Amino acid sequence: MVLADELAKKQRSISVAEFFEKNKHMLGFDSPTRGIITTVKEAIDNSLDACEEAQVLPDILVSVRRIKEDVFRVVVEDNGPGIIPEKMPSVYAKLLYGSRFHQVRQTRGQQGIGISAAVLYAQLTTGKPTTVISRTDASRPAHKMSLTIKTETNEPEVLSHEEIDWILPHGTRIELEFKSNIAAKKKLLEYLKYTSIVNPHAKFRVELDDDAFIFDRVSSDVPPCPVAIKPHPYGIELGVLKRMAAASELPLSEFLVESFSKVGAKTADEICKYSKLKPTAKTDELSLEELSALLEAMQTTKIPAPPASQCLSPITEELIVKGMEKEFELDFIKARTRPGNVFGGHSFIVEAAIGYGGKLQAEGQATLLRFANRVPLLYQQGACAITNAVQGVNWKNYNVSQQGLPVGPLMILVHVAATNVPFTSESKDAVASVPEVEREITLALQELGRDLKQFLSRREKNKQQDDRARAICAVIPLIAAKVAEIVELPVPDTSIIEGRIMRRVVLKKKTTGGQIQIHIDNYTTKEQEITLYDISFDSAEDASIPPSFVSEMDGEYTKLWKFTLAAGESFEVTYHGEGGGLIQMQGVAENLKVEVDLDV
Amino acid sequence: MVLADELAKKQRSISVAEFFEKNKHMLGFDSPTRGIITTVKEAIDNSLDACEEAQVLPDILVSVRRIKEDVFRVVVEDNGPGIIPEKMPSVYAKLLYGSRFHQVRQTRGQQGIGISAAVLYAQLTTGKPTTVISRTDASRPAHKMSLTIKTETNEPEVLSHEEIDWILPHGTRIELEFKSNIAAKKKLLEYLKYTSIVNPHAKFRVELDDDAFIFDRVSSDVPPCPVAIKPHPYGIELGVLKRMAAASELPLSEFLVESFSKVGAKTADEICKYSKLKPTAKTDELSLEELSALLEAMQTTKIPAPPASQCLSPITEELIVKGMEKEFELDFIKARTRPGNVFGGHSFIVEAAIGYGGKLQAEGQATLLRFANRVPLLYQQGACAITNAVQGVNWKNYNVSQQGLPVGPLMILVHVAATNVPFTSESKDAVASVPEVEREITLALQELGRDLKQFLSRREKNKQQDDRARAICAVIPLIAAKVAEIVELPVPDTSIIEGRIMRRVVLKKKTTGGQIQIHIDNYTTKEQEITLYDISFDSAEDASIPPSFVSEMDGEYTKLWKFTLAAGESFEVTYHGEGGGLIQMQGVAENLKVEVDLDV
Repeated sequence: MVLADELAKKQRSISVAEFFEKNKHMLGFDSPTRGIITTVKEAIDNSLDACEEAQVLPDILVSVRRIKEDVFRVVVEDNGPGIIPEKMPSVYAKLLYGSRFHQVRQTRGQQGIGISAAVLYAQLTTGKPTTVISRTDASRPAHKMSLTIKTETNEPEVLSHEEIDWILPHGTRIELEFKSNIAAKKKLLEYLKYTSIVNPHAKFRVELDDDAFIFDRVSSDVPPCPVAIKPHPYGIELGVLKRMAAASELPLSEFLVESFSKVGAKTADEICKYSKLKPTAKTDELSLEELSALLEAMQTTKIPAPPASQCLSPITEELIVKGMEKEFELDFIKARTRPGNVFGGHSFIVEAAIGYGGKLQAEGQATLLRFANRVPLLYQQGACAITNAVQGVNWKNYNVSQQGLPVGPLMILVHVAATNVPFTSESKDAVASVPEVEREITLALQELGRDLKQFLSRREKNKQQDDRARAICAVIPLIAAKVAEIVELPVPDTSIIEGRIMRRVVLKKKTTGGQIQIHIDNYTTKEQEITLYDISFDSAEDASIPPSFVSEMDGEYTKLWKFTLAAGESFEVTYHGEGGGLIQMQGVAENLKVEVDLDV
Repeated sequence: MVLADELAKKQRSISVAEFFEKNKHMLGFDSPTRGIITTVKEAIDNSLDACEEAQVLPDILVSVRRIKEDVFRVVVEDNGPGIIPEKMPSVYAKLLYGSRFHQVRQTRGQQGIGISAAVLYAQLTTGKPTTVISRTDASRPAHKMSLTIKTETNEPEVLSHEEIDWILPHGTRIELEFKSNIAAKKKLLEYLKYTSIVNPHAKFRVELDDDAFIFDRVSSDVPPCPVAIKPHPYGIELGVLKRMAAASELPLSEFLVESFSKVGAKTADEICKYSKLKPTAKTDELSLEELSALLEAMQTTKIPAPPASQCLSPITEELIVKGMEKEFELDFIKARTRPGNVFGGHSFIVEAAIGYGGKLQAEGQATLLRFANRVPLLYQQGACAITNAVQGVNWKNYNVSQQGLPVGPLMILVHVAATNVPFTSESKDAVASVPEVEREITLALQELGRDLKQFLSRREKNKQQDDRARAICAVIPLIAAKVAEIVELPVPDTSIIEGRIMRRVVLKKKTTGGQIQIHIDNYTTKEQEITLYDISFDSAEDASIPPSFVSEMDGEYTKLWKFTLAAGESFEVTYHGEGGGLIQMQGVAENLKVEVDLDV
């Protein structure tokens, strides 16, 4: 018998579910820890996408609970538009089934794989089906289903289906059980923190066993749902064009206008002319050679870039700054949203931000936060084009040392928003190398780098001034003492001079013949929000500026003033009384504060 | 209308061909350059696998020819067992169709995606179908087909099919046309060079436009074809066990013995006992809880590791050394094949080699050659567990400096052979992180590192000895001259002493009263292949060792001796004559040669 006949017996079709069951690491299920993160991520991606489509402020519940030694129950519930019962089995229990695959717009999920892969992983590790509840309107009942995937065929199997009462008028709830370990918790919170930074309109309520967390929204505006656009002529390949042409009943010129983004009648005529085809040619009868000429014409003719503003949803500089400031209390923070750009016909926008100081670690490499279509990328940093671009910038130009990544108390955020993010694999961990995208990242970082450099050199200058000032301040009391000795007068108080030189906030209380004067000078370069406490036996009823608050106890009065002093400004209040007592400022950093009570 | 109803209209199935067409970078088709490499690689993987199955010495033709501005025709032809005509369409024009997906053994291709993806890429970029010729036996005709993939359904379409005359009795030829650029050539040769190193039994004839190259085999033994084994109990997950059990008609104990590797009757009983199930229980009627208990028992019971020797095909230390030496002429080379090991029930073997010096670049990081199942990995080095493991070794322990990778004239080869290589993505560029595999790589490299350290310290010692010897040799002639002056004798020849000290090959010719003596000492530490020329008016007919060759011209005789001298050995020949003339050694490196003719 011929060997080829033998071999032929073994050749057969493999279902896509079998393929991904065997290669589950390609979908982000390589370890039990990661399984939980990936499942929560896929469910949240779907929830956020659906809420955006429904223009609802997302309110998402995430619950991860250990129910046995190594078995965890994961629940994700949202207030999105829900899924009709006819579609629930396919959406949750069939790989490569979804609504966003053919749409040209920015979405988190795209391939119709993610959540079904989680269902597959659950049944693989615990044998348990997944429970889904969904309700599409207050006027309709909620549906509850128990689902598995038939691996050999990649078809859904509905084990049970009932109508139930549910508290939410619309939304979706998914419950899965699978093997994992507690190590996932920390990473999960990290993922949720970053997700919350780039989705400032979403609220996440999180339950990890008996601990509860809330990541609240900082904005109440639902970002506009990106609108699907037609494909751009620059992003089409011959095979796809051939398929589109074969399916069209329009004459060539109309076909071009109807099928592609940014092609009007004039551009269509130009394309026809260049390709030597008649505008009235029957599109579905074009030969391969003609299509080839058509494609060349389409990609040579000057056509405006696809409209980025409709189909993309950048976070905006303001909200990035807000999100990062909230989490890390930075000394310097600047964000940049680049103008829309295009690679191979796909629109994209790059956003970046640099933060410095604050709560960031002073030692070691910068923290790099990578995002694609508002989803944080937590794994495979080394394989990502974003990392590559960050490392490719010459940070020494901006007075930052560098070991691959820049070094120091730095945080770098990069967000790539695109109608088609080129991930290196279906686990969506890393952006593949695309020169146009990398260039945009580089440009954004260079712009931010220049701002950072300015900040650092100003800080350096301030530090030098401080050093000089400190040196001067060290000798002033000595000079004062010497001069006082010579002229035989008491040693004067030099702290005000020091305060001015050292750029501090100086508080002074003076009592002269029953008149009390409290004076504050803000010599710092920043606005200061000050609360002043003056505690003495004076009631200060005739104070030139009445206190914000007064309280009395055993004849002793606590007087409180609250005010804001811009850099260089002064505050002064006078009243009659005996003076003495205790005086104090709050709201000014310790190292910026000089308090002098001349009464004492 | 409820939004969910609207959304439902857009939800639909996506064919796996559509999925990979859109995400072609996941299969290694991210750029035109890479398209060619990936296509050739996938075709060669198939050819080598098929030849191994047929136990044929592979003779593979690779031709890449530019036929238009940016269109290239790629041909790969092999002498493998061929494919029967009924299966040709599915094998070449249907993704996820193949024979090796369900087999537990080492193969290059596995998923039934690679070559069909190349067909998909060709039709996408040029619209052209792929031509395949295959013949399975000399007694049968060859079949030629023109194929495309129907993207929407992932089904093959046969555009033409004819029987033809073909010169090969069996084999396969594939011809594709697609867009690329010439930059691919260099990378292609690199890929073929590395493929040839790890497939020493294969011969590649390569035509790149008008240039021809041959990578010949260095071994004529076809490696044994790895034998498929049953899955090991440690590598099974609950979902898969559930499926296997449901399909079985055997009682539990027999089911275990029949379905799994390394489970005998005794082990099966142990498993049953531990899981509290009857050995006679009906396997297909087990509940989820019972299966869960069964799985726990299977993975807790001590079961020997799966047999690595049958299902894996390591290259062997000898052939790795041979392959690397051929290409890089190294000063030091050592290879290590680790014993078989197992992760999650999959057998694997790690092989590694370290080369030093020779033609390697002295500056910069080590060259890292990564291989998986005898296939070179050319992309995404940064994302690979192999790189990770190499960087994790503390090379300073072995006197090698390190910047991530070790630094210096170093080449490190790592080959992971496994029944299931955990690639990070379907483009098969990088091995995913698996602790067991990384540990084996580390162990292999540490063993080799110790050998390298020994080599380097011996070399360092030799260098120190050389330095010392050179210092001594510098004074010897001065001492000799001084002593000669004192004792009033002629200055003696000190070159023999120097030769001995400096570990050189010393040639001396002495004429004493009509007797000529030629003496060679090999003071080096290496065997030397020497050719000695003695040109003079002596015919040396009575030479104690007859010359290998003599020629005469105008009465002058050229006498030639060819011989090998082991380290420390001497050669001496005597004859009668007048002496004088010219004497010379060839085959000894210039810096190791001392030639002294005392006649002159």
